[in-house]
Amino acid sequence: MEKHFTLDDILAMEPFYRRDLMNTVSGFRSCQLLGSVSHQKVPNLGLFNSITHIGATPPLLGFIMRPLTVPRQTYHNIKAQGFFTLNQVTTDFYRQAHQASAKYGELESEFEAVGLTPQFSPMHPAPYVEESPIKLGLELQEEHHIKANDTIFIVGRVVEMLIDESLIAPNGHVLLEEGKVVSVAGLDSYFEPKLLSRLAYARPGQETSELKNP
Amino acid sequence: MEKHFTLDDILAMEPFYRRDLMNTVSGFRSCQLLGSVSHQKVPNLGLFNSITHIGATPPLLGFIMRPLTVPRQTYHNIKAQGFFTLNQVTTDFYRQAHQASAKYGELESEFEAVGLTPQFSPMHPAPYVEESPIKLGLELQEEHHIKANDTIFIVGRVVEMLIDESLIAPNGHVLLEEGKVVSVAGLDSYFEPKLLSRLAYARPGQETSELKNP
Repeated sequence: MEKHFTLDDILAMEPFYRRDLMNTVSGFRSCQLLGSVSHQKVPNLGLFNSITHIGATPPLLGFIMRPLTVPRQTYHNIKAQGFFTLNQVTTDFYRQAHQASAKYGELESEFEAVGLTPQFSPMHPAPYVEESPIKLGLELQEEHHIKANDTIFIVGRVVEMLIDESLIAPNGHVLLEEGKVVSVAGLDSYFEPKLLSRLAYARPGQETSELKNP
Repeated sequence: MEKHFTLDDILAMEPFYRRDLMNTVSGFRSCQLLGSVSHQKVPNLGLFNSITHIGATPPLLGFIMRPLTVPRQTYHNIKAQGFFTLNQVTTDFYRQAHQASAKYGELESEFEAVGLTPQFSPMHPAPYVEESPIKLGLELQEEHHIKANDTIFIVGRVVEMLIDESLIAPNGHVLLEEGKVVSVAGLDSYFEPKLLSRLAYARPGQETSELKNP
């Protein structure tokens, strides 16, 4: 049976029920640790699951920052330093990554608190997560205020990448499943995606077919 | 071995290689069919994999629309009508969904061309995909021009939802895996996520633990 909800039904829901429902109906998400550093040089880690591909040329990613109604260490660091990292979470350390979503004090490093290792590159001021096989270094590019709920859409330009080279196929495709990268539903459910198929570029009037050289 | 790329390395890549690489490093994505309707009442379907949760109260989702350097039927319909739908893709019809990414003419309905069924609700002008167990009806809320590459971040407010009620857990969590919802990597690789674990809300100084009532 198909259950029908109107906007009024959604707004009348018990708040935790609505939060769980609305966080899952949007589908599976990526799950990344965002590394930044404070002006006191304390490395900071936050868990984000709204990272969106915006474009390849130039290489741009975006994500949603929640309203600034409370101090947001990640936002403060990104604004102060202009740089941050995004590190794919794998099945090997998703429990530590989840723990990084806890609210630690601003003088405490989440790296130490959750048992992950900061990795520094001479070319980028923000810390990477050593345990991650896919690490991106970004520079703040622009930000957009979402008027409807006071969130901020942050756009970053990728200026450095550190990728386990065994994961990069000859055509450039990064084999997320070989890297054991996780996906997430809602705020708490972690998944390991299993490959169904790689499909060829779709054209009108042609049968859908598997990609020849995956 | 960790392969190191600078921004200059990325910009010097062969364009298809860069497109594949940058579309996969951002991690697993959701995969949804966007339904809209033209002023001639032709139902339109497009495949989108940048749908992002923005907030639950009010219920908001966003996605990236590519630059308007060519006619974009989906954008035109959303602007003209103010409404669109998002329909989760499942393992049962992901091949038809992929085929909807082909460039059909503006007088041709992708529904017919790929063999999916439009479903209409009296409360919402845009067509849903009958085969999908999770259907969201949205109203255009705001749009943001991403200056760095001329894409548009479109924000919609959820005004109606049609969800298979067997997928909604007592706490509101939608069981995407029970609905056989797919995830996608890059532009062509379809995945079926397998549940690893649901983790409890993280607090400093507490062990990460499984959720008691998933």
